[in-house]
Order: sequence, then C-alpha cells, then structure tokens
Amino acid sequence: MADDVNAFIDRFTLDGVGDGPLSGRTFGAKDLFDIAGRVTGYGNPAWAASREPAYTTASAVRRLLDAGATCLGKTHTDELAYSLMGVNAHHGTPLNSADPRRVPGGSSSGSAAAVAAGLVDIGLGSDTGGSVRMPASFCGLWGIRTTFGAVPLDGAMPFTASFDTVGWLTRSGPLLAEVLRVHGFASGAPRRLVLPVDLWAEAEADCVAALGPAMAALQAHLGPAMPVILAPEGLAHWRETFRVCQAGEIWQALGDWVSTHDPQFGPGTRERFEMAASITPEAFEAAQGEKSRIAGWLESIIDPETVVVLPTAPAPAPLREADPAALDGFRLRAQALLCAAGLGGLPQLSIPAGAVEGGPVGISLMGAGGADLALVELACDAGLGALSA
Amino acid sequence: MADDVNAFIDRFTLDGVGDGPLSGRTFGAKDLFDIAGRVTGYGNPAWAASREPAYTTASAVRRLLDAGATCLGKTHTDELAYSLMGVNAHHGTPLNSADPRRVPGGSSSGSAAAVAAGLVDIGLGSDTGGSVRMPASFCGLWGIRTTFGAVPLDGAMPFTASFDTVGWLTRSGPLLAEVLRVHGFASGAPRRLVLPVDLWAEAEADCVAALGPAMAALQAHLGPAMPVILAPEGLAHWRETFRVCQAGEIWQALGDWVSTHDPQFGPGTRERFEMAASITPEAFEAAQGEKSRIAGWLESIIDPETVVVLPTAPAPAPLREADPAALDGFRLRAQALLCAAGLGGLPQLSIPAGAVEGGPVGISLMGAGGADLALVELACDAGLGALSA
Repeated sequence: MADDVNAFIDRFTLDGVGDGPLSGRTFGAKDLFDIAGRVTGYGNPAWAASREPAYTTASAVRRLLDAGATCLGKTHTDELAYSLMGVNAHHGTPLNSADPRRVPGGSSSGSAAAVAAGLVDIGLGSDTGGSVRMPASFCGLWGIRTTFGAVPLDGAMPFTASFDTVGWLTRSGPLLAEVLRVHGFASGAPRRLVLPVDLWAEAEADCVAALGPAMAALQAHLGPAMPVILAPEGLAHWRETFRVCQAGEIWQALGDWVSTHDPQFGPGTRERFEMAASITPEAFEAAQGEKSRIAGWLESIIDPETVVVLPTAPAPAPLREADPAALDGFRLRAQALLCAAGLGGLPQLSIPAGAVEGGPVGISLMGAGGADLALVELACDAGLGALSA
Repeated sequence: MADDVNAFIDRFTLDGVGDGPLSGRTFGAKDLFDIAGRVTGYGNPAWAASREPAYTTASAVRRLLDAGATCLGKTHTDELAYSLMGVNAHHGTPLNSADPRRVPGGSSSGSAAAVAAGLVDIGLGSDTGGSVRMPASFCGLWGIRTTFGAVPLDGAMPFTASFDTVGWLTRSGPLLAEVLRVHGFASGAPRRLVLPVDLWAEAEADCVAALGPAMAALQAHLGPAMPVILAPEGLAHWRETFRVCQAGEIWQALGDWVSTHDPQFGPGTRERFEMAASITPEAFEAAQGEKSRIAGWLESIIDPETVVVLPTAPAPAPLREADPAALDGFRLRAQALLCAAGLGGLPQLSIPAGAVEGGPVGISLMGAGGADLALVELACDAGLGALSA
C-alpha cells in the first residue's frame, strides 16, 4: 500500500512526547522541515547530496511531537517547493487516493497523499502560494495555510521570506481545529460572509456548481454572502505582483545554490528558476510596494468578523498524463485564486466540498490575520466537509 | 424646464381613453413608435425627411392610451436606436435629472429623461440590447425589458427582428407593475436567487459595493443567492454572438435605406453601420446558431422559480463630456452584462439601487420568459427601489 502511494521519501518512527492532545495521532512531515539526524532533501537529489544531516528539528515538527503525535516519516515535496501540481521528475508523483487518475497537487504533495491514503492523520506542509490549499482541494482534504508569521518556520528550508507559512492537511475538521489549538490559535466569531465575484469568475462552471451545497450550508449558518470585487485593479495585476515578489525572493534564497550546483531539474522547474533569476531589482522593488498596498487594502476590508468564501481552485486536479505545459497553465489559472492570501498574509482554509467528474474540489474560507481557528470552527459548525463525495 | 430636459422631439397631447387603470397617468413614446398623423423620426433627420406621417398608431402606444394614460409627445432616441449612451448629434443629449453631469443612456433616452425629470409618469421605450435597462440604471429609474415576443411590436420601426422588445421606465415599482398588468402579464412566485459571478466580475468595484444594500434586502427576502457561472464559454463569446446577430439583423432591416440615402450620422453611428454591413452570411448564420444554443442553455438553468440578480451596468453613466471613443468603450463593457437577456429573449428589470460619485446605478433581476410581472412584484416586496439615493 505505502509503496503504491509514494507519499514518503524517508520512513521512520519518531514517537510523540507523553500524553498530549494529539496522542495517538500520526503525521508525516514535508521534506523541507529539518529533523535532527536526517537529510532534508527538498524534493531534489542534488539538494539532498549537498546537505549534511540536520542538527536540529524544526519547531513545526517539534510542536506536533510535543503534543503527542508520532511522526511516521518525511514526505515528498515538489522540487524546491517551486510548483503546485505535486509532480516530481526525480521521485515520482504521489498517489491521489481520492481520484488516482489525477495529480495530488503540491508542493506539499506527499503529506497530502499520505493523509488521503489514511497512512497518517496529519500532513505537515508549508504554503507559500497554495502548497497546502491546492493539494487539499485536489485530494478532498481539509487544509489550512496559516496567518503569515503565526507559526515559526525555523528549521524549514528557505524559500520566500515574506510569503512562507506552515500549514496542515487532515481528513476531518475537528482534528485540524485541535492542531490549531495546539499551536495557540484562539477561537473567534466571524459574522459576515463576503463573496469575491472576481475570484469566483476564475473558476470553471461545473466547479462553481459543485460548490453549491457548501455555499448553501455556509449561508444557512452565517447568512447571505455579499458580493464584492476583491481586486479592483484586476486579478492579473495581483497575480503578477505575487509572481514577481515570489520569484525575486526565491532567487534571493536559492539563487546561489542553483548557480553553484547547476542541478538537474524536472520539466518546468528550470524555466521557473531562470524566470526568477531574471527579475530585476527595480521590478522586485515595485512589486514589493504593490504587495504592501494590496495587503493594506485586504486588511481594510477583511476585519476579524469577516470571512471571504471562494473556490480553492478553478477546477479539480489535472490528470496525471497531462503534459507539463498543461500543468503549468493550470498553475497560472489557480494562482489568480490563490494569490490573495499570500499577498495579504492571511489564513485560508480549504474544505472538501464536492467533486467534478470524480475529482474533488474544495471551497475556501479566508479571514483576517489570526482567524485561523475561527475559520475551522465556522466550517465545522456550518456542517461543511461532510458534504464531500 | 421642458426645454432644459430636451426629452421630447414632438410635443402634443393625446388623451387616454375613458377610465382605465392608468387614468391620470401620462407617458412619452420613444420616437420609433408610430402615432397616426405624425412622422416617426427615429432619431435621424434624414430618416424623418424620408417618411410620410404614420397612418396608424403602434399597439404599444394604443395599449397605454386604452388603459387611460395620456400621451404627452414623442421622445428622443439615439440615431436609429443603434447606441446605448443617449447621445444624439442631431437633436442633442437629453438631460439626466438624476445627475446632470452624466449622459442619460439610450437608446430610449428621451423617455428616460422625461420620466426622470417628472415630465411624464411612464416612458415607453424599446430594448434590443439594453435600450431601456441602460437609461434606467443611469437615471435612477425602474425599467423593464419584456420577454421577447410578449408585447406586440407592430408600428415600431424595424431594427433587429429577433431581439427587439417593448419596455417601460417609471419612477416607482407599483406603477411599473400596473403597466405590466395592463399588458396581460401574470404574477409569479420566484423562489431561488442566482448570482452569476462572471457577470458581476464585469462591474467596477465601487458599483458592486453600491449594490450592497439592495443585495442584502433581496437576500433577506428570498434567501441567499447561489453563485453560478452563467456563460461557461466566456462572456466575450456571448457578447460577440450578440454583436454579430444584432448587426446582421440591423443591416437586413436598415441596410437598404442607409445605402440609398447615405444619411449624415453622428460620431460612431456610421462606423457601427459599416460594421453591420460587413457581417458575412456565414458569420451571421454561425452566430444565429450560437444564439439558439445559448438561449437553450439559459432556459435550462432559469426556470420560472429562478431569478438571476446582476448589476445592470458596470458603472454609473459616463460624463457628458466623455469623447465618443470613451462612450463606445463603455458600451462594449456594458454589453457583457446586457447581452444575456437579449440572447435568451428573457425579461430583465432594472431597479434603482444606489449611487457612485453621484451617479445612479441599478441592480437587475432577470427571469424566465413571462416572469416580467413576477420580477417587479419581487422587487417591490423586497423593498428595493426605496434604497436609491
């Protein structure tokens, strides 16, 4: 079973500490978090070959262990986390147990695959531009990207300093809520539902239709959603701002290593790093300014009582046989939906909400900074998640 | 006052008949409806010069007279009705009393201006691609485009055989309901509210925001709106289908006259007729096929219990000093919102719903064929219209 799933790159058992709120639970850790004594592979053999075993264990791993959860290994990630599709030319594509014809999504691909297959209870991942939300939607899981800065990232591989967040994937809402409580998140009481029509318009018609029951349940619980235009300047501008900021930071973090090692990359990855290398300081600075402005705008309209509801992805996962260009096209379309939380540093929860042609699709709740647990509690209270196939 | 408004091209009094439901009410008739003994000018002096006085009176006029309403004259229209902005190079631009800095919208421009200024109670107009809905939104009025084929068009100038409909503008919902009852429309009980996110995404952010109170009132009355993608093939395709069908039919109806008379046209009109002349039979036939397919799709998702809610226009009216290119650009953007009702032959009601920088904006309800009166009753029952500035 485990080999069919191809979720783990390194299997071992690290027992949880004592009798905590997560005792009896298991987790897999995305292979960009350090675990003492083990090499952090980061989805690329050349990276793994250039690393010594880690001296320390990342906070994000230790916190789960300290709460009693047992780690069953390190899970696959897309190469240097720079993709959303869950395809890895070196290590293979983990199984999407919810629909084995489809890719699992990434870059937290192995953690999602392990949870979807029932191999672990909790998938520890990271989300810069959708790396937890995308596989959650694709695999029919609960997945949260936490508020930027809320969960320490020490011991995680460098990627984009101003976007990276820790996130988790689970099969149930209550367990995800428990994980958030363990990390000190507080409850909240959002009261106002907002529907960003410009983001919804990016999703395919049958995906929007599949989210109908979830929308009905959510509105029955919290009242009618109010339509807004979230990106008055256009989503293309937001996505481009995200792309330039992300690529610039990635090159700052990884450019030296890529230039020095000239590693073998799978399809698309080399092109992305070349693109990242081409970002000029002027373009990067301008995009950073736009990011700050957009974050301020989002903060002004998303107060702690407000929840934004949106499709997590424009469609179910692409098929495994899709060619790299098609996968990259999907990634671009998805970024229009995914970039807002990144630009605003906001938490976003994806909840399994239905299926299109057998492929799961998720509905997302995005809230104010710190509303992470409130989003999960709201989804549980509204009866979401139980609606999925 | 009347001269400042510039709503009428021909003022006279035709008393209503006996004691009917519209006794004591007054109306103006768009100058594309025949009234016996008077020349129908159609917004262009060369057209007027080429016409004898009409022998008969159009059904749409007679019906209002028979119900007791008094006609106070014929009102300006855009040239040969081929515009949405209410600007006429020959006769001037009628006043938009709701915001005199802005154009009134067209092509039922004079009827809208007369109602907005309080000169008449009812503005008789026609709506092919928005010619009642657009001025209703711009002038802060109630305005309905009726179900295609529901109100006879005899005695109306030829324009587009498969899109033209009769419509009316009023300052209040109850009066518009009365006008619909006079025309034999039946009540209904729509129960399901649908929010087409792709159409909403075409509106400007502050226009969407201004529609908030109306959306809240509507959802409080009818329950939460469900998001849908109305045009799975993309609105650009729908708008292009509409454009080709409309232009082809216009050239069929008016091409001979335009070719023979080579009339003087104001800015934009000549270009539109040249475009209409260029539609090939093959392109026209293909677009007609698409129109039928789209109409079938709309019928499949908009049953008699369903109401689609959308912004009437993407923004408030352009300023009067806007140049022709800017007006044409606005018209193109607006057609993305207006074309659905035309392609489906569906009724659409615009209700005054708020203002952006002093300019009114309307919210629209679109329903199944024959639901005309049900839409107005719903809007009245939900307390809409009272929300406008």
